[in-house]
Amino acid sequence: LSWKEEAKKRVAAEAVGHVKNGYIVGLGSGSTVAYAISNLSRKIKEEKLDVLCVPSSYQSSFIAVKEKIPLTTLDEYPILDLAIDGADQIDKKLNLIKGEGAALAREKIVASSAKKLIIIADETKLTANLGLDHHVPIEVLPFGAKFVLNRILKSGWKATLREGKGKVGPVITDNGNFIIDADFGIIKDPRELEMKLKNIPGIVETGLFIGMVDLAYIGTKAGKIQKLEKK
Amino acid sequence: LSWKEEAKKRVAAEAVGHVKNGYIVGLGSGSTVAYAISNLSRKIKEEKLDVLCVPSSYQSSFIAVKEKIPLTTLDEYPILDLAIDGADQIDKKLNLIKGEGAALAREKIVASSAKKLIIIADETKLTANLGLDHHVPIEVLPFGAKFVLNRILKSGWKATLREGKGKVGPVITDNGNFIIDADFGIIKDPRELEMKLKNIPGIVETGLFIGMVDLAYIGTKAGKIQKLEKK
Repeated sequence: LSWKEEAKKRVAAEAVGHVKNGYIVGLGSGSTVAYAISNLSRKIKEEKLDVLCVPSSYQSSFIAVKEKIPLTTLDEYPILDLAIDGADQIDKKLNLIKGEGAALAREKIVASSAKKLIIIADETKLTANLGLDHHVPIEVLPFGAKFVLNRILKSGWKATLREGKGKVGPVITDNGNFIIDADFGIIKDPRELEMKLKNIPGIVETGLFIGMVDLAYIGTKAGKIQKLEKK
Repeated sequence: LSWKEEAKKRVAAEAVGHVKNGYIVGLGSGSTVAYAISNLSRKIKEEKLDVLCVPSSYQSSFIAVKEKIPLTTLDEYPILDLAIDGADQIDKKLNLIKGEGAALAREKIVASSAKKLIIIADETKLTANLGLDHHVPIEVLPFGAKFVLNRILKSGWKATLREGKGKVGPVITDNGNFIIDADFGIIKDPRELEMKLKNIPGIVETGLFIGMVDLAYIGTKAGKIQKLEKK
């Protein structure tokens, strides 16, 4: 395994260490969360834990089913004890950009439903400047895609409709919507940008996760874990 | 026809009077807009106008097709010259509650795409207090419905998931989502409420239309038209 995969495995294990018997756990999406799901599966078997999980995407649901983790839904358990998720970019204030995997809307709902949100990532995701060399994925209603795209472009930013792979035309999210990738450059006030975007009709959710994270484990190339906590 | 239907027809004709040759027109939804579509169809034929319309729902699309009005999309024409829509409640500041027909998200996108938005309604829709004896429809992702419902209930308001007719279970919108009807009582600061709601993950759009209307025609029981203009 590369150092990055080793780092992901390490922080995944660290996060899963927070899971206690009786917990309802929200599962994020992506390659780092996949390690956490495998790790959690072993832990549940070894410690004979009574744990139920709520996946935030078909991807994490499929992995959880394969790993024989008992699943539930937010309808049954609207309050989660813990959610574990990854990030595409994370700054020292624990603000995130998410959505490379197009699962941002369900991830945000799962994260918001959890008493505690732990983010796991390798150190390439850590940035001093949120948005630097990184676009912000935005989920939009198909009907409003062109309108939202124009609104963002007219504000002087860059944005493109994300193309799908394995299908013609645009990506369709698990919710049946489109993804717009918008480039805002360095985001000095992510909360203000989030509110501006949310005010545009047609935007279902943005990949900006502001003030939501309680704890982050960052796996370094040197083989350590950097712990970042909410202040 | 009852006085209400007469009033709707009257304001529909008044709004259609604003349509000029070459216009791209956004069509809202609902029973009052249905009169406007019929009226516009006659006008297009009689005056041989070159007009294209963008419907905001399957309902208005079906009526427009029946009335042989040429249709287009926001993809082709992202800027509309005019949009005509109805309202469930309208106050003197021209703020609206919409969404009885569950078409609020597309209606808001169409309204936002238009250079001018004209609202038509009978006088029973006019209120001194937005929200008084009237719920606010909110479109939500099915995955987030319970979470949003709980979030609204925990804030001390009332809210229910809207049941469908002609199908079991909840209403499914034209976008494939659910509708929550929330009762906030009299809404003193609709803009603030709108921002609060938009901040809840899972909410796709709300039925609050704030500061969007340029002109409203209100049909009275006495057979007149009350004209309200944006200040």
